[in-house]
Amino acid sequence: MGKLLIVGTVAFDAIETPFGKTDKILGGAATFIGLAASQFGAKSAIVSVVGEDFPKEYLDLLSDRNIDISALQVVKGGKTFFWSGKYHNDLNSRDTLATELNVLADFDPVVPGNFKDADVLMLGNLHPSTQLSVIKQMEERPKLIVLDTMNFWMDNALEELKEVIAHIDVITINDEEARQLTNEYSLVKAAEKIQQMGPRFVVIKKGEHGALLFHNAEVFFAPALPLEDVFDPTGAGDTFAGGFAGYLTETKNISFNNLKSAVIHGSNLASFCVERFGTERMVNLNKKEVNQRLLQFKELTQFDIELQ
Amino acid sequence: MGKLLIVGTVAFDAIETPFGKTDKILGGAATFIGLAASQFGAKSAIVSVVGEDFPKEYLDLLSDRNIDISALQVVKGGKTFFWSGKYHNDLNSRDTLATELNVLADFDPVVPGNFKDADVLMLGNLHPSTQLSVIKQMEERPKLIVLDTMNFWMDNALEELKEVIAHIDVITINDEEARQLTNEYSLVKAAEKIQQMGPRFVVIKKGEHGALLFHNAEVFFAPALPLEDVFDPTGAGDTFAGGFAGYLTETKNISFNNLKSAVIHGSNLASFCVERFGTERMVNLNKKEVNQRLLQFKELTQFDIELQ
Repeated sequence: MGKLLIVGTVAFDAIETPFGKTDKILGGAATFIGLAASQFGAKSAIVSVVGEDFPKEYLDLLSDRNIDISALQVVKGGKTFFWSGKYHNDLNSRDTLATELNVLADFDPVVPGNFKDADVLMLGNLHPSTQLSVIKQMEERPKLIVLDTMNFWMDNALEELKEVIAHIDVITINDEEARQLTNEYSLVKAAEKIQQMGPRFVVIKKGEHGALLFHNAEVFFAPALPLEDVFDPTGAGDTFAGGFAGYLTETKNISFNNLKSAVIHGSNLASFCVERFGTERMVNLNKKEVNQRLLQFKELTQFDIELQ
Repeated sequence: MGKLLIVGTVAFDAIETPFGKTDKILGGAATFIGLAASQFGAKSAIVSVVGEDFPKEYLDLLSDRNIDISALQVVKGGKTFFWSGKYHNDLNSRDTLATELNVLADFDPVVPGNFKDADVLMLGNLHPSTQLSVIKQMEERPKLIVLDTMNFWMDNALEELKEVIAHIDVITINDEEARQLTNEYSLVKAAEKIQQMGPRFVVIKKGEHGALLFHNAEVFFAPALPLEDVFDPTGAGDTFAGGFAGYLTETKNISFNNLKSAVIHGSNLASFCVERFGTERMVNLNKKEVNQRLLQFKELTQFDIELQ
């Protein structure tokens, strides 16, 4: 059984979609990553920070899924990071209504002793300096370091972002961000340039249009499962990353072929995430549903073809 | 060897992309469909109309590829249909600069006697009444009728469009058009509704994001091949349709599994079409390149996965 160390936000989200709205509910990158990774056998821990206002039931929800939360700092008198957003009718774009950093502003991550030898390090979207600080605390270089980031850091901390990108193995990034980072419109060229910046593997997330995995001259594509209804896209990217990292931690094989499978597992879990608000669907997910949908992925994409 | 009857425009296009611009070059839906279908062994004919200004070398180009052009009317003193467009920087959207119907305005298609028993009828984008007139001229109902259309007819001839849709087996349509036709944002729901209108199979084209094939509860997805450079998207949708129809004509098997293969063949040929202006790449395409890229499609999408 492998060990997975997850760094990222644990937060309150308030979400509005064309189908309804929520008050403050459980959110945050590390939350979605952890829940997705918990579908696999890996032993995982979350490094993060919340305020005193964070409900015990949410902490229990994580530890009940065998996620070690001993390095999830609870700041006395502090308030938990809060994000609020409203999705447009097509669910492909959203407006951020509020971002209250609160305790996240002074977050100083501390890697717990028993995870300094983690096999896989999953760096959720955070300030690149925070991500780098975690890498430096590891006793041995993890077999695989996966990083998720976003355009905000390209705009505001590009040098730090480039530094952390030089230290990692896999980056997950969306198509627009890949283009912004490289000034290349072609995703093939963008992925080539990003590989030159450090990571051996580049995963480009295209939301409802699936995800691409690049490694040297190899490319793999996983579609998003066509769904009758997408309810709330919040957390889909983190769920993808969590499934990806969780699967690789458990299978301990970082060949291109196994990374393909990891992309499918990540896409599969993300397809559940978007069916309900926030973490609701992920919390109630069972193995049978997961396996059924993996078969759907296979039917969706597999074909026989004879050369002419 | 099956018989494929193709109805659609044969035209002049003038194209501007971020990479260059052309004068009037060979274009038109039936042209791209015919060139793509000619990659397979099927015997095909084009029903269309051009003016006296249409160069003999373009006619030869078609007949050299074993496309029967005896039903391609040449109107004395008439001018060929002309379309001009300019693509935006992302190549995903374009402005139409000119549409001169010319001889197309009075086009009255006449199906040649030797193709009234065609196995497959491919109706390229045209006025739905014209498409319907061709169906009615067939002596026996073709084994498969494939129809391509666009939003223009939804805006301007919706009732006629619905009538022709009720007579066909496969519709190829892009994602926005599928949404417009059904008032459903979810493509799964849109495809369900379209099947209720007539066609047993619905192909939703998503351009650089691939294509979906729906039939009852079954779904198949073919990605577009990630390319270093897309040069000119003109004709990609028609090339897709031509590859799809040409493959099915030749293999004479309209099972869902074989339609999957047809979608892959169509996507494969479309990936070449966009590499040069207009028909340039399709005209110079050889079997070896086609087969090589089919293998790339396989590598791009195939995976092994074990259920947990």
